[in-house]
Amino acid sequence: MSLKDLQKDVDDWAQQFNPAYWPALEQMAQLSEEIGEVARVLNRMYGHKNAKTDEEMKNLKEELVDAMFPIICIANREGINLEEAWKERMKNRLYTRDKDRYQKK
Amino acid sequence: MSLKDLQKDVDDWAQQFNPAYWPALEQMAQLSEEIGEVARVLNRMYGHKNAKTDEEMKNLKEELVDAMFPIICIANREGINLEEAWKERMKNRLYTRDKDRYQKK
Amino acid sequence: MSLKDLQKDVDDWAQQFNPAYWPALEQMAQLSEEIGEVARVLNRMYGHKNAKTDEEMKNLKEELVDAMFPIICIANREGINLEEAWKERMKNRLYTRDKDRYQKK
Amino acid sequence: MSLKDLQKDVDDWAQQFNPAYWPALEQMAQLSEEIGEVARVLNRMYGHKNAKTDEEMKNLKEELVDAMFPIICIANREGINLEEAWKERMKNRLYTRDKDRYQKK
Repeated sequence: MSLKDLQKDVDDWAQQFNPAYWPALEQMAQLSEEIGEVARVLNRMYGHKNAKTDEEMKNLKEELVDAMFPIICIANREGINLEEAWKERMKNRLYTRDKDRYQKK
Repeated sequence: MSLKDLQKDVDDWAQQFNPAYWPALEQMAQLSEEIGEVARVLNRMYGHKNAKTDEEMKNLKEELVDAMFPIICIANREGINLEEAWKERMKNRLYTRDKDRYQKK
Repeated sequence: MSLKDLQKDVDDWAQQFNPAYWPALEQMAQLSEEIGEVARVLNRMYGHKNAKTDEEMKNLKEELVDAMFPIICIANREGINLEEAWKERMKNRLYTRDKDRYQKK
Repeated sequence: MSLKDLQKDVDDWAQQFNPAYWPALEQMAQLSEEIGEVARVLNRMYGHKNAKTDEEMKNLKEELVDAMFPIICIANREGINLEEAWKERMKNRLYTRDKDRYQKK
């Protein structure tokens, strides 16, 4: 399943509605909300509650996808090709920006 | 380029370092930081500054990928298969949860 | 009720527990979670759901306070005097940084 | 300096501009941006960079205030009295919600 397929999945879903995509700052608020959900689960798994249960792992899987969803909506709304953007960014990350940032093995 | 390729890209990058993945709550803080960058760009494009310039579009492309990066790191660290998680979630989204939530065309 | 009173309120509450304050990155995840809650309410009030009901107003009041809470916890944990920090920052904001940033009346 | 003073400080600043307060979802994006800045500083102080320097402490002070700023803007825009909201919430927190949630001393 390619990034293009993901963008198409989201678009197929969005095109049922009118408007297909919400205004950008509403998508952004949705993204903040979903990130908050990821934070909640990770805090339960790794914070003082220390509850890395099967149920929380299942929640994390769902919340990570829910966090990807508004990112893809924002990209679709703007006509951004995420695969192309990913490739450019990783080229930069692998060879330039992070070259000396971390401790190598 | 599949979701699996993305997860592998990130893992190839991460495996250069020791440790390969940061602790979960540090990845989470990284995610919050990147989401903040997306917010900054969208606010410049669609807020009162109203500056939907080519440069901001380029920034948005980069920031969306930068926001996907820690999501994929979190998934990799936990051994989560994002493609599988995506498919389960979309099935739910398309047929159940959102069925009556929005105004259909 | 002064900012110092707020910091003391939080400290009185925290000192019941052991440890009084969670590790910094756990406080940060808590902050991300609470900000997500603010986003959720504002999106319901001002997004496509457009539901600025009395109940949502009540929720917003609670969520804003819940968002202030981890900010104050972080400050307390680091021994930061928020009133002092506020005064310094506002001096800067009022006279320097934002001087020409927005459209004056 | 009371919470009311803070709300007035922000209002004095805001009333110079037209409009005094940005739309709610723009304020929300601003909040997400500032929270991202807090995350960035805390990650440098407590993550793998482990750089709890005087400079980062100074940055944290500033970023915490910058994060309080949009919270207060949102409250002002909605006519929310934060002191009243705080008191209600803390009553609840101290006596009810968190009563059995944490390990007491």
